[in-house]
Amino acid sequence: MTDMQAAVKAALKAQAVETPSWAYGNSGTRFKVFARPGVPRTPWEKLDDAAKVHEYTGAAPTVALHIPWDRVDDYAALAAYAEERGLRLGTINSNTFQDDDYRLGSVCHPDARVRRKAVDHLLACVDIMEATGSRDLKLWFADGTNYPGQDDVRERQDRLSDALREVYDRLGDGRRMLLEYKFFEPAFYTTDVPDWGTAYAHCLKLGPRAQVVVDTGHHAPGTNIEFIVATLLREGRLGGFDFNSRFYADDDLMVGAADPFQLFRIMYEVVRGGALPSDVAFMLDQCHNIEAKIPAIIRSVMNVQEATAKALLVDREALTTAQRAGDVLGANAVLMDAYNTDVRPLLAELREESGLDPDPVAAYHRSGWARKTAEERVGGEQAGWGA
Amino acid sequence: MTDMQAAVKAALKAQAVETPSWAYGNSGTRFKVFARPGVPRTPWEKLDDAAKVHEYTGAAPTVALHIPWDRVDDYAALAAYAEERGLRLGTINSNTFQDDDYRLGSVCHPDARVRRKAVDHLLACVDIMEATGSRDLKLWFADGTNYPGQDDVRERQDRLSDALREVYDRLGDGRRMLLEYKFFEPAFYTTDVPDWGTAYAHCLKLGPRAQVVVDTGHHAPGTNIEFIVATLLREGRLGGFDFNSRFYADDDLMVGAADPFQLFRIMYEVVRGGALPSDVAFMLDQCHNIEAKIPAIIRSVMNVQEATAKALLVDREALTTAQRAGDVLGANAVLMDAYNTDVRPLLAELREESGLDPDPVAAYHRSGWARKTAEERVGGEQAGWGA
Amino acid sequence: MTDMQAAVKAALKAQAVETPSWAYGNSGTRFKVFARPGVPRTPWEKLDDAAKVHEYTGAAPTVALHIPWDRVDDYAALAAYAEERGLRLGTINSNTFQDDDYRLGSVCHPDARVRRKAVDHLLACVDIMEATGSRDLKLWFADGTNYPGQDDVRERQDRLSDALREVYDRLGDGRRMLLEYKFFEPAFYTTDVPDWGTAYAHCLKLGPRAQVVVDTGHHAPGTNIEFIVATLLREGRLGGFDFNSRFYADDDLMVGAADPFQLFRIMYEVVRGGALPSDVAFMLDQCHNIEAKIPAIIRSVMNVQEATAKALLVDREALTTAQRAGDVLGANAVLMDAYNTDVRPLLAELREESGLDPDPVAAYHRSGWARKTAEERVGGEQAGWGA
Amino acid sequence: MTDMQAAVKAALKAQAVETPSWAYGNSGTRFKVFARPGVPRTPWEKLDDAAKVHEYTGAAPTVALHIPWDRVDDYAALAAYAEERGLRLGTINSNTFQDDDYRLGSVCHPDARVRRKAVDHLLACVDIMEATGSRDLKLWFADGTNYPGQDDVRERQDRLSDALREVYDRLGDGRRMLLEYKFFEPAFYTTDVPDWGTAYAHCLKLGPRAQVVVDTGHHAPGTNIEFIVATLLREGRLGGFDFNSRFYADDDLMVGAADPFQLFRIMYEVVRGGALPSDVAFMLDQCHNIEAKIPAIIRSVMNVQEATAKALLVDREALTTAQRAGDVLGANAVLMDAYNTDVRPLLAELREESGLDPDPVAAYHRSGWARKTAEERVGGEQAGWGA
Repeated sequence: MTDMQAAVKAALKAQAVETPSWAYGNSGTRFKVFARPGVPRTPWEKLDDAAKVHEYTGAAPTVALHIPWDRVDDYAALAAYAEERGLRLGTINSNTFQDDDYRLGSVCHPDARVRRKAVDHLLACVDIMEATGSRDLKLWFADGTNYPGQDDVRERQDRLSDALREVYDRLGDGRRMLLEYKFFEPAFYTTDVPDWGTAYAHCLKLGPRAQVVVDTGHHAPGTNIEFIVATLLREGRLGGFDFNSRFYADDDLMVGAADPFQLFRIMYEVVRGGALPSDVAFMLDQCHNIEAKIPAIIRSVMNVQEATAKALLVDREALTTAQRAGDVLGANAVLMDAYNTDVRPLLAELREESGLDPDPVAAYHRSGWARKTAEERVGGEQAGWGA
Repeated sequence: MTDMQAAVKAALKAQAVETPSWAYGNSGTRFKVFARPGVPRTPWEKLDDAAKVHEYTGAAPTVALHIPWDRVDDYAALAAYAEERGLRLGTINSNTFQDDDYRLGSVCHPDARVRRKAVDHLLACVDIMEATGSRDLKLWFADGTNYPGQDDVRERQDRLSDALREVYDRLGDGRRMLLEYKFFEPAFYTTDVPDWGTAYAHCLKLGPRAQVVVDTGHHAPGTNIEFIVATLLREGRLGGFDFNSRFYADDDLMVGAADPFQLFRIMYEVVRGGALPSDVAFMLDQCHNIEAKIPAIIRSVMNVQEATAKALLVDREALTTAQRAGDVLGANAVLMDAYNTDVRPLLAELREESGLDPDPVAAYHRSGWARKTAEERVGGEQAGWGA
Repeated sequence: MTDMQAAVKAALKAQAVETPSWAYGNSGTRFKVFARPGVPRTPWEKLDDAAKVHEYTGAAPTVALHIPWDRVDDYAALAAYAEERGLRLGTINSNTFQDDDYRLGSVCHPDARVRRKAVDHLLACVDIMEATGSRDLKLWFADGTNYPGQDDVRERQDRLSDALREVYDRLGDGRRMLLEYKFFEPAFYTTDVPDWGTAYAHCLKLGPRAQVVVDTGHHAPGTNIEFIVATLLREGRLGGFDFNSRFYADDDLMVGAADPFQLFRIMYEVVRGGALPSDVAFMLDQCHNIEAKIPAIIRSVMNVQEATAKALLVDREALTTAQRAGDVLGANAVLMDAYNTDVRPLLAELREESGLDPDPVAAYHRSGWARKTAEERVGGEQAGWGA
Repeated sequence: MTDMQAAVKAALKAQAVETPSWAYGNSGTRFKVFARPGVPRTPWEKLDDAAKVHEYTGAAPTVALHIPWDRVDDYAALAAYAEERGLRLGTINSNTFQDDDYRLGSVCHPDARVRRKAVDHLLACVDIMEATGSRDLKLWFADGTNYPGQDDVRERQDRLSDALREVYDRLGDGRRMLLEYKFFEPAFYTTDVPDWGTAYAHCLKLGPRAQVVVDTGHHAPGTNIEFIVATLLREGRLGGFDFNSRFYADDDLMVGAADPFQLFRIMYEVVRGGALPSDVAFMLDQCHNIEAKIPAIIRSVMNVQEATAKALLVDREALTTAQRAGDVLGANAVLMDAYNTDVRPLLAELREESGLDPDPVAAYHRSGWARKTAEERVGGEQAGWGA
C-alpha cells in the first residue's frame, strides 16, 4: 500500500455522512406518493433503519431529525435509543410549510401572527437541540410568492432578518444555524432565500455561527456548484451539504446518480479547501419516489465515499504544477486521471479492514431486514412528509 | 368602430376557452395542498363553479373532465346538468398515474398486466366520450424513469406505440386523440413523451385524428413555444393547448401571469396560422396552490382573450411588408405596437355588447358566490387530485 | 392631468439612460460580424451618433467609453467634443480580454506578469476617469476556465481580490467601482465573478464605493433578477444596470425586446426601492448583430422609459393594502393594471412638452442621418469590438 | 481474456471517429480568437495534423471538410494527399453563414436571390462530394431571427423545405443528407431547425437518405439526449453525431469533458440500438479556444472510445433481467458497474495489440510535431472560421 493510499483510507475512515430521518419514510411528487411495505411508522423505527445503513457502511453514524415529523415526548429517550444502535442524533430540521397558516409564507408572512408562530416553532427546535445534543439547526424556508406583486419582496427580507436574529440569539453554546437556500419550489415566482448570496448576506450579519448549507439540487440549470463550495469555504461560511442529485429540478434522487462527475468536482473543492475533516456537515437529503429506501441510502453513502476517494486521489502536486504552467490539457488530465480511477476495490478493502462486508448493498439484501420489516410493520400509519 | 376593430371583436366573440374541472378543486405541490372553504366536493359542484366562470366571461362554455376524478354513474345526467347551466362537457382526460400499480409507468410499464390495466382505462375513457359527447380524448402519461438503466428506453416506446394504436382504433366517428408531451415531472430521468417531436412521430403513425397538445408549461427553459405552434399548424397536427404559465418548471400558474408577451406571440402564430377559429382546442390547465380558484380561472380566460385581441390587432399587411423588406426593427415594431396596445377597453365593450359586466372579476366578487359556497359546501371531501 | 401623472412625468424627465459607445460600432457572434454602412470609425463619430440618440429621446445625455476601443490622445478634448453636442462622457469600461496574454485570464491569470499587466490597465482607466470626469469605473472580467482542473478556483479568487483592492485604493474622490458579474461566456466551466453573491462579497470587503452592476443578460435561466435588484438596493450595493435582453444566453438584444414584463418588474423594484432618482446608473449594454444601431438604441431608451412609466403608475397604496391582506389575486391585479396600461401617449406628451418629436424613431429616420453617415463615413476602419 | 473482453475489443477496433478539419484551425468566442503557433494554414496542413491524430489513436481515419474553408482547386489531389497519409476525406459540411448576404438567413432568407445563392452553394457541395468520394453532406443552418416579428416563422419553413428538396434530389447514388438541428445561436429568437423534431419532420418528407445529426451541444438545458438518440435509432433516422461537450451553451469543448456520464449513456443507447457498427457517423465537432488543438482532439477520440468501451461492458442480460423485474436499483447498478469500470487498461492493451503506443497523448508529445510545425508554419494566414 502506497503512502497515498494509506492517507486516502485514513481520510475516508474519518468521513461521516448524516442520513435524514425522512428519507426512510414515504415521499413522492405532487402526483402520487407510492407507499412501500415495511416503511417505518415512528421515529424509533426510522432509527432502526438508519442503524442498518450504518451497520453496513460504517459511515453513517448520525441521523438528522425533522420537526414535527420526528416529534416525540422524550428526546433524551430517543437519543438513548439511537445510542444503543450505534447512532447519534444529528441536525435538527425545522418545518414551517405544512400548516394551513403557512399558505403565504412563515417567517416572511405578511401577517405578524403567522410570523410569530413560525419563529416560535424555530425556538422550539432550538430547545430540542439541547435535549438531543444536536450541534446544528438547519433552516429551510418554503417562503416565497407565486405571482408578481403578491407581496413586497423587500419587506419579506426584513421579516426574514428579524426572525433569523431572534433564533440566532437563542442558540446555545457551540450550536450553529445552517441556512439553506433554494432556487425555486414550492414558491414559483420569488423564493425568499433563493441563492447562496442571499443566505451568505444574512449569515454575515448574524455572526460566525450562522453558516450556509449547499443542497446540490437547489440551483438554476448550469450553475457551477463547486465554485460556490470553494467560495463559501474561502469565506469560512460553508456549514454543510444536503447531498442528492437532480436532472432538472429538485429531483431529490440518490446522490451521484445524475452527475457523478459533478459530485467528484464538489468533493475535490472540499478536499482542496481543507474541509475534510472539518465542521462541514455532510448530509444526505433525498426523497425516494419509486425505489426501496434503505438500499438507496446505502448506495448514496457509497457514492459520497467513492467521489471523496477520487477527490483524495488527485495528484495535487502535479495539478498545481500544470496549473501554474498554464497547461490546460495537462491540468485537466491530472484531475481526470483521479476521476477515471475505479475506487471500488479500495473502498472494499477499507470496509474489510473495518470488519464490514465489502459490498454493503449485497450484505443488506442478505440480511433479510426488508422482508422482516415488511412483515412486522403492519398497521399504523407509515411515516411520510405529512407525519 | 373601424373595420379592424369589428373583425377583432367578431373573432373574439367566436373564441371559446375550455376550463378544466380539476382547476376548481384543491391542488398543490409535493410539500402541501392548501385547502380552501367552498371548494367543490363533486363533479356536479365543479360544474356549478364552471358555470360562474362562463356566466361572467361568456367565453368558457365547455368543461374538461378528468377520469377518475370526475367519475359519475350517469354521464348523460352530468351532460344534462351542464346544459342546464349553459355549459357542455368537453375533453375527456385520462389518468394513469395515481394507482400503486403505476409506480413504474402505465402504458410503458415493464409488466404487461399493468399495461393492460392502463389501456383498459383509456378504452373506458373512449366509452365515456360517447356518453358525454366529447370530441377529444386527451392523453398525458406520467410514464418515465428516474434512474439511468431503470428500464429500456426504446422498448418503452414500443409499448407506448402499441397502447396508442389500440386506443386510436377504438375512437368513435369524429373523435380525436390529443397526445400531450411533457419535458419532465413526475419522472426525472426519462419521460416517455418528452417533447413535441415524440408526440408528433406517434401521431403521424396513428392517423389524422391523432393530434399534438401543447401545454405551455411543458418545455425546457428557453424553448421557443410559438415556433412549435407554427410548425404543428403547418403540419396540420396541432390539436390544442393546455394553457397555464410557469417561471421555471410546470408551475401551473394562471395563464399569462409569468410571461404575457410569450402568450401574445403564441396567439399571434395561432392567428397567423389560420387557427382562429379552427379545431384547435383552447384549454386551460392550471393548478391553484394559494389563490382563490374561480377568480383565477376568470382572470386566465381574460388573459387568453387579451392576448388574442392583441394578436388580432397586428397589422399583418405592414408586418409582411417590413418582413419582406428585411426591415428588422420595422417588423418588430409592428408586432410590438399591437402588444403595447391596451385592449382592455375593447374587451370591456365586447362584454357589454354581449350583455356581460365589463369587469368579470368584480362582477364575480359582487355575486356572493364565494361566501355562499363556503357556507353551503360543508362536510364531505373536497375535490382534489386524489379524488 | 392628475397628480399621479404629473409625478410620473416629473420622474421620467429626471431619468437618464447612458448609452455605450460600443453599441454604435459593429458587433456580432463568433460566427460572423455583419458590418453596416455608416458605422463610426472613431470615438468622435460614436459621439456624433450618440448625440442623435439624445437629440431625439432627450434621455441619453451620457456615453460610456470602453478602453482601449475608445482610446484617444486627449480625453479632455473628447469631453469637450461631447459637451458641444449636449453630451457628457460617462462610465469608463475596462477591457482585459482581447490581448493574446489574456488567454487564461487577466487579473486571475496564473502568471503574475499577466496579472500585473491587467491591473496596470485598470489603473490607466482610473487615470482616464480623472481626465474625462467620469464617476464610475465599470469592471467586467472575462476571466474563468474552460476545463475542470485547469486552474485553482480558490486561488483565482485571491488574485482577483488583490487586484480589486489595488484599483479601489487608487480611485479618486467621489469615484466608484462598479463590479459586474456574468453567469458564463467567454469562459465555459468557471467564471471568476459568476453571480451577484461573488460580486457582493468582494464589494463588501473593498468599501462603500464598490458596488454591484446587474447586467440583465448575465444570469442562469429562471433567475429572478428583480429579486436581486431588490436585495442589492436593500443592502445599499446596487451600483447600476447594464440593460439589454436575452432569450437564452447573453444575447445582448435591445432592452425590453425579449421580456418586457421582466423589465417592468425590475423597474418596479427600482421605484419601490427609492432608486429613482439615485446614484444607480441606468446603462445600456447591447450588441447589434443584424439591426441598424442608432434606431435600435433609441428603441431601447424608449423601452426603458416605458417600463419605468408603468412602474411609476403602480398604485402603491392599493398594492400595499392587498399585500397586507394576503389578497394574492388582488395584489397581482394592481401590478398588472399598471403593466397593461399603454403609456406611449403619456411619453409622447412628455416629449412634446420638452420640445421633442413624440415619435423619436420616426424623427430619426426623417433626419437623413443614416444616409448621410453612410455616404460620408467611407474608408478607414469601422469601429467594432476589436478596435 | 474473457469472451466479453474480446467482443468489446473487436467492436472498439471497428469504431472510427471522424475529425473535423476546422478543429485543427483557430477558433474562439465572439470576444477573442486566440491564435496558436503551428496552426495549419491550408487544407493540406490540416490533413497533416489529422494524420497525426490517426497515427496515435488508430481510430480517426477520416476527416470532414468545411466548404469554403477547405476549398481547393483539385479535390482529387486532396483526396490522394489524404490517402498517402492513411486518411480518407469524409463528410462535406456546407457554410451559409459567413457572407454579408446571409445577415437575415440563407435558405430561409426573405429574399429569393439570397436563397438561390445559398442553394447553389449547397449544390456545389454536392458536386464536391463526387470529387472527394464523400458519403455524407452535412447541413447546418445558422438561419433564424433575433426579434419577434422579424420574419414569418412559417414561411421560413416553406423556404427551407424547398431548398432541402432541391438539394436532396441532386444527391448522387449512395450519398446521404445529414440535417443538423441547433437550439440557439447565432440567431437568438428563432432558429429555423431548432430541435430534432423539426429536422426529423423534414427528413421524413425528403426520403430515406435524409437523416438527422445529433450535435451533443445543441440542446436546451436538461434535455435527455440519449432519449433522442434511442428514438431516432428506433425511427431509422439517426445519421450521425457531432460530438463535443458543453456546460451551458454550445461551448464546443472536448468530447466528454463536461459530462462523461452523459456521453456513456449516449453510447449505451447506440450499442443497445445496434448501431455499432452501422451507418451512423461518429464525428467530432469541437472548437478549441484556449487549448492546444491536436492533443485535445486525441483526447476527444480517446474519450469516445472509453465511453464506448464502458457501454459495451454493460451486462445486457443482467440489465434486462432487472428491468423486467422492475428492480430500479438493481438495473441502475448494472449500468453503473460498467460506467465505474476503469477501461483505460483495456484500451491500452487494444492499442498495443494494434502496434500503437498505449498512451496516445504522451506519444504525440514525444513526437516533436508541435515544435516542428510551430517552427515551419511561419507566414501566411492561419486557418480559422473565416478562411
